[in-house]
This record gives sequence, structure tokens and C-alpha cells, in this order.
Amino acid sequence: MITGKNYIGNTLSAKGSKTYQTFNPKANTKNTTSFVEATPEEIDAAVALASQAFDTYQKVSGAKRAEFLNTIADEMEALGDTLVDMYVSESGLPEGRAKGERGRTLGQLRMFADLIQTEDWRNPTISGEHNELRQYLIPLGPVVVFGASNFPLAYSTAGGDTASALAAGCPVIVKSHPMHAGTGELVASAIQRAAEKTGMPDGVFSNLNSAGIEVGVQLVKHPKVKAVGFTGSIKGGRALYDLAAERDEPIPVFAEMGSINPVIITQNAVEARASEIAQTYADSITLGVGQFCTNPGLIIGVASTEFTNFINDLGEKTAAIDANCMLHPNIHTAYEKNGKSVISQPDATIVAVHQGTVEENYAQAKITTVSGDAFLKNSKLHQEVFGPFSLVVQCKNEAQLLEIISTLEGQLTGTIIAQEEDYKDLSPLIERLQNRVGRIVFNGVPTGVAVVDAMTHGGPYPASTDSRFTAVGNQSIKRWVRPFSFQDFPEQLLPEFLKNQ
Amino acid sequence: MITGKNYIGNTLSAKGSKTYQTFNPKANTKNTTSFVEATPEEIDAAVALASQAFDTYQKVSGAKRAEFLNTIADEMEALGDTLVDMYVSESGLPEGRAKGERGRTLGQLRMFADLIQTEDWRNPTISGEHNELRQYLIPLGPVVVFGASNFPLAYSTAGGDTASALAAGCPVIVKSHPMHAGTGELVASAIQRAAEKTGMPDGVFSNLNSAGIEVGVQLVKHPKVKAVGFTGSIKGGRALYDLAAERDEPIPVFAEMGSINPVIITQNAVEARASEIAQTYADSITLGVGQFCTNPGLIIGVASTEFTNFINDLGEKTAAIDANCMLHPNIHTAYEKNGKSVISQPDATIVAVHQGTVEENYAQAKITTVSGDAFLKNSKLHQEVFGPFSLVVQCKNEAQLLEIISTLEGQLTGTIIAQEEDYKDLSPLIERLQNRVGRIVFNGVPTGVAVVDAMTHGGPYPASTDSRFTAVGNQSIKRWVRPFSFQDFPEQLLPEFLKNQ
Repeated sequence: MITGKNYIGNTLSAKGSKTYQTFNPKANTKNTTSFVEATPEEIDAAVALASQAFDTYQKVSGAKRAEFLNTIADEMEALGDTLVDMYVSESGLPEGRAKGERGRTLGQLRMFADLIQTEDWRNPTISGEHNELRQYLIPLGPVVVFGASNFPLAYSTAGGDTASALAAGCPVIVKSHPMHAGTGELVASAIQRAAEKTGMPDGVFSNLNSAGIEVGVQLVKHPKVKAVGFTGSIKGGRALYDLAAERDEPIPVFAEMGSINPVIITQNAVEARASEIAQTYADSITLGVGQFCTNPGLIIGVASTEFTNFINDLGEKTAAIDANCMLHPNIHTAYEKNGKSVISQPDATIVAVHQGTVEENYAQAKITTVSGDAFLKNSKLHQEVFGPFSLVVQCKNEAQLLEIISTLEGQLTGTIIAQEEDYKDLSPLIERLQNRVGRIVFNGVPTGVAVVDAMTHGGPYPASTDSRFTAVGNQSIKRWVRPFSFQDFPEQLLPEFLKNQ
Repeated sequence: MITGKNYIGNTLSAKGSKTYQTFNPKANTKNTTSFVEATPEEIDAAVALASQAFDTYQKVSGAKRAEFLNTIADEMEALGDTLVDMYVSESGLPEGRAKGERGRTLGQLRMFADLIQTEDWRNPTISGEHNELRQYLIPLGPVVVFGASNFPLAYSTAGGDTASALAAGCPVIVKSHPMHAGTGELVASAIQRAAEKTGMPDGVFSNLNSAGIEVGVQLVKHPKVKAVGFTGSIKGGRALYDLAAERDEPIPVFAEMGSINPVIITQNAVEARASEIAQTYADSITLGVGQFCTNPGLIIGVASTEFTNFINDLGEKTAAIDANCMLHPNIHTAYEKNGKSVISQPDATIVAVHQGTVEENYAQAKITTVSGDAFLKNSKLHQEVFGPFSLVVQCKNEAQLLEIISTLEGQLTGTIIAQEEDYKDLSPLIERLQNRVGRIVFNGVPTGVAVVDAMTHGGPYPASTDSRFTAVGNQSIKRWVRPFSFQDFPEQLLPEFLKNQ
């Protein structure tokens, strides 16, 4: 069923000579399929086909595009255990997670299908002295999508970026994530079957294999590509953003990147329920082996005996949770390296490290701590350590805590853990935190991103490259569309939904 | 009344030694006031004050910000003839235009005031399984505005960019346009008085003088600046875009730049009403001495005897219109130079040039023509000639006309001049044109931009740096805001309009 080839629209293609395999981190072995890296000619062909498909696809009715999205979901579902097994073999994540993420992915596809059943999402507007102006949203053109290492389904081949772009009327070219190329190909095959079954133009979707950076670079530089979606590291997202900004015709890049998701715990909360918070956070820090963009990598409080006790308790509870394997040896290596970098900074110390049996590719969870003074001075302590890692900052007082929040880099989320008696004093904290993040969670954990209208999954740089958009929920479609106006148009030349009646 | 100083919030400041004067193109003399260029320290002070003001200003209620905007309009109106006279002396534009543009500017300020009387524009949204997510739009932070040479009021100091940013809750720092620094200072003084009268924080608005590029460069690079608005040339807008993209923290730049605004005339329209179209376009091409971003600089049709006659008629009618002075000698020089560049291209010829008496700084209107073959091959023929200039392209057939449209650079507008019998055949043209422009006008002229909700004033690059936004109308506020979500927040800590009731 898996061929290792590229999908150039409806055509399987493998003209290149470079190949690579995916890795099973749990078994600590390579998987068998060889994936053939796309050649410059294949990339050109995919983009040319996408550009051609755009002429047709942008005119396909919302109801027909919705049928396409729903059929993608059906075809993915029909892959059944084949998809789940492939996912597990390429990620080391448990079967339950695979099934949960599949459900989320199908849900997203169907949500966008619902959205575009009517044309309301295009925000049709009529105004002017004589109603002479009629505006609606139109698609930008071919979109390139770079999937995430940590969400082989929900933020990859048929994930949120692809679903929202296809919903908007933009053809999509996926730069397949090398860590789960097999999962990617299975999903690509589902999309391709759905496109054929629902009569979509050839080239509305392509899937290109790549283990290096060349394919992505060529795609982002291609004059016929009109926008880019990316989920991953700051380094990767920034590189694509720079390439896109340097083009003769710059194009928008929405990159959802790094975040350490600060959690602020008040003294009252520590005094009232330290043990409960410690358990909740030990679980959140180690959930999915800490491999979430919303992982709580930074916990901030004012130094006190109770806070010290909390930190030790959090360390013990985190260290006690069973270790598990990371997505890939490279991710494990980066986890070790980045963790060491934080711990080697002046004043940083380890509170606790998981001590149980640890197999190859398994991450040892770590809780570390540092003073507010040191944290303020040293931006190396602000770096994301992707994995089950958190740094607890002990501020000397409330003012220092606020200063840290104000000067923090942009984040996807911030969390406030507080008691009712704190409410009256929280405004300064909320205001500062709001200016640095896309979402504030109250007395909860940042891990978990609901796919609903009111979700903001994005935030000030470097959480994203453009805080004016969200990567999750119906509103994420806005990344791929632009307003357009007809002026003084004869009724018969207008789209149906812009006519007078 | 005019001091030549910078406004650093409420404080007049002139610490620099570099000065410059504005120019009266009609009288062909320098105006007397010396404007003192802002120093690096003054720029820093203005940004620091804006950043500090943001903490307060973002919390000011919509009703209070509306009062501020309305008071700016009142204070501008109260300047009466002083403002009109200054405008005329710095632009050479007639008094009627000054008054019309003032009306538009006051109208824009009051329109945004109306918009923010309620919080609906923030798009408050509640969702999630237990209504736990509450999203609304929040301001980005200090915005730097670069005004336009050709709209000393409506797209400058208190123009659309400033009005929309202040409405959004963002402090504004204006980089004053050197050609109308006196008009800018008068308007800045009105804004400053309005800020004091309505109790806005010091630093919510600053106005910095500059005749060179250094002030703008420092502003765009400043870490505390969070967005940029620009109206002007492609070269200028692109330079700012590049600076913003190269920052450690890239920031959005909305630049509304060049456009040649293609007008397509069908053979049927030429046959039915060539003379009427020629007069309408002679008037549109020379309106405001052609100094509009929506000036019809490109007219396209299929070669025929009737089209040739139309071109000659257009030339005669355009040349017959009285010449007038351009905004500034530099603009006049650029007009001559850019026109010569187009005319010197292979196959380009002059149809007609205004032959009446021409004084210093006056522009001679020009109609030129070229074959479709030559136009397709040579992008130098696609350059904007800012002024009363238009190039008529004679295509060899309908297919070539469509090819030209498909391969044209992005434009603010496109116009179709057609007869009812053409309607059934127009889809291919409309589709291609729609992908290249922000607005299509039918049987009209592109000059004239209504300030209404359904207006799109923007378009694919290089018409703007981000086609997903418009520079005109209520929706232009979206350039300066981002979505933000509260999750699981206690009712009492939410803004009023996000509460349950």
C-alpha cells in the first residue's frame, strides 16, 4: 500500500535517487519503506499543476469543496488500523493517541466542510451610496504546508493547515514530514482518492517527500506559490519566513513555532493546594512525553518556603512518572542537548530527574529551577526544551514576577493559578500576560487545544510569525484569503451570493 | 502657529540641527518655516512614550477612544482656513481639493469613532464545550505611520492609518511627510489638543519631522514598535517591509504601493461609445494631475481600426485638458524621467502630449501606446508613471489580452468597459483580473475610493505588501489587532462584553 513515491496531483512519481526511511523509536529500528525525495523537476511539476488547478478549484462551489473535505475524512477513516499502525510505528506514540489524533483530524476536516456549506464565511458585504460595492473573501492561490513532527495527523498532511486551505479554495502542496513519511503517504492517498471521487481538478493536492531542506526551500521560493503554513521549531519557521520575505513577490507565512508557555502560581494557591497543583503539572509536563507546543516549560512564582516545597514536590511527582520514548532519536538528542544548555546556565539547578529504567530514545523528565534575577538577565534560560522539561523561576518579589512577564518573548499561552482571594489583585498580571500571549488559561493547564471558534492558537513572535491569525478553528481559514470588491457590477455577472436578493 | 518642531507626545521638541523647508510648487518657491529633523534621541523618546502610553491606552474604553477621535476631527475642523491655506501652499492642489480631502479625513475619523462605540468590532466570541473560551481582538501596540505625498490629509498625519490604529487602541508615531510638514504639524497639533482635552495618555500620538530616510529606518527597527502603515512608492514600501522582516521580532507592515490600474475595453464598447469613453478617461487620467494611486495608467484593447481611432481621440482629449502643477519638483522630475523610460522602450510610441503653456513644475499629460507583443515581453512597460500618463496596449487578439492580464503584477484595481452583448463572454476576463487586483470596476473609472465597509483598497503585491487587508474603510482596523482568548476565566475577571449576560 505504501510506495515511497511522491504524489504529483493524481500521479505517483519517483524520479529522484535520494531515499530515506522513517524510524520506529519504540523498537529502535528503521522502518522498511524507502521514500524517494522529490526532484526539482517534480517540485516544479507539482506547483505548475497546483497553479493550473487553482483556476478551476477556486470556482468549485462551497458545497462541492465540502464534499471533497468530508470524503477525505471518510477515506482516512477507511484506512482503519493500517493508518493507526503506521502512525504508531513512525512516532512511538501509543495507539490511543493515534486514534484520538485521527478523530481530531477527521473532526477538523468535517468542521471546515460545515463552514463552507454556505458562503457566510466569505463575509459578503454590500455598501456604498448606491450599494455599488460588493465585497467577499477570495482564495490566495497554491499553499505549501509543512507538517509538524509531533502531530503526524492533526497538524500534518491533512491537518488544520491543509483542511483550512482546501476549504478556502487554495490547492495544497504538502512537504511531507520525514519522520512520518509513511503516515503522510497514507493520508495523501486518502486525499487523492477523495479528489478523484469528488471530481476535483488534478493538482488540487500534492505530497512531496523530503528528508532535507532543499524541497522546502524550492517550494517557498516558487513564484507560483502564494502562501505557506508551517508548524515546528523557531529556527525552521524563521528560515521559511525569511525566504518568503526575500522573494520578488513576498508571500505570507503563518508559522506556529516555539513557546515555553509560562505558568504563574500565586502564593495563595501554593499555600492552599500545592500538592494538587504539583500532580496536575507533573502530568501536564510529561503528557505525550512533553512533546506539545503548549507544554508548560516555565513555572513562575515568588520565592517562599511553601514555593520551595512545591518545587521539590513537583520534581518528585514528575520524576515518578514512567518514562516513554520520544518521536525520533533526533528529537531525543535535541532534548538532552537543550536541557543541558539550560542547566549549565549560571544559577540554574536540577530539582529532579526521572530515575526509572530508561530505554533507548526514552526521555528522562526533568524539573529545574533558577532565580528571577538570573532568568531576567539570561535569555538562554528562555529557550524551549521540547520534551518533559520545566524550569521553575523563583522571583524575589511580585514586582520581579511582573517584570519577567513584561519582558518575556511572545508565547502561545500563559496560565494563571490563583485563589479567589487573589482576584482583586490580578489585573496587573493579566494585562502584562495578555500582551505576551495568544491565550490565557485560568486554573488549568495549557496542554490541550480545543478546535472551536473562540480558540486562539498563535501569539506574538516567536510563538507565531503573525499574531493576527490563529492556526486552529474556523478562523484559521482567514490566513489563506483576501478581500476583493466588485464595483458597479451588473447583477448577472456577480456570484449568486452577492446578488441583490 | 507652526513651530517646525517635533511632537514627542504632548511636548514640542527640536534638539536636532538638520532642518528643511517645504515647497510651494504653484509659486515655485520654498515655504518659510524650517522644520527640525528628529534626532535619534527624540525618536527613542517618542517610541518609549508610545510604549508606555500603550499600557494605559489599550485599557481606555471604546467610548472614550471614540471621543478622542471625534475631538481630533473637531480640532482639525477648527483650524479652518489655516489648514486649507497651508495644504494648498505645500501641495499646489486647489482649495476645493483641500476642503474635499479634509471632509474625507474628518469623515474617516468619525466613522472609526462610530465603529468603536460598541465592542462588536472586536468580534467577541464564546465557545467550547462549556463556553470556556472567550475570544476578542486586542491591539498590537505602537504603530508607525508613513503618510502619502499625494494625500496630505486623508492618508497622512490623521489619515486612515492613524485613525484606524488609534481606534484599535494602538498609539501612533507619525513619520511626517517632508513635502507637507506644515500641514502635518497643524494636524499633529489638533491631535495633541484632542488627546489632552479627552485625557488620553501622553505619548498616544507623536509626530516626527524627517526629510531623509534615517528617522523612518530607526522607527521601523525599534523593538518597541509593533506595526507599520505606509502609503507611497513600491521602492519605499518595500524598503520598510524588508527592514521589518529582518528584525529579531518581525512586525507586520501594511504598505499600499504602486499600481497602474489596468482598464480593459471591449471591441463592442469601442464601437458603441468610443468618444464618450475617451472623454471619461481623459478626465480620469488628468484628475489631480494624475497623482492618484488608482490613476488608470494602462488601457488594454484588441487592435482594430476603431481602437486606433479611440487611442487618437483619447490622446487629443487628454492633451486638450489644461496642465497643472505637480505636488513637488521632485515628483515632476520623476514624472518626466519615468515617462521617458516607458517611451524609450522598443515599440512604444507617443500618441499625444499636452501642448498648451506649461509653467515650472507643471505636468504635460501624455498618452502613449505599444503592441501587446512588446508589453508582454518587457516589464519596464509595466512601471507606474505617477502623473497624467497612460499607456494603451494594442493586443493582437483576445487570447493575448487574457495572457497580459494573467501575467500582470498585482494591482489595486482593474476596470472593464463593456457592452451588454459582451456579458456572456466576460467570465474568462473577470476570473483572470480578479486574481490580479483588489477591486474590479465595471463601466466606470478606478479613480475615487469610497470609504465604506465593502471597499477593498489593497491587492496582490506590489499593490500592497499583504493582500489580506484593506487600507480603507472600517475593516482596515484589522491590520492593527490580533485575536486573544481567555480560557476558564472567572466571570469577574473578564471584560464586561465577554461576560455571560
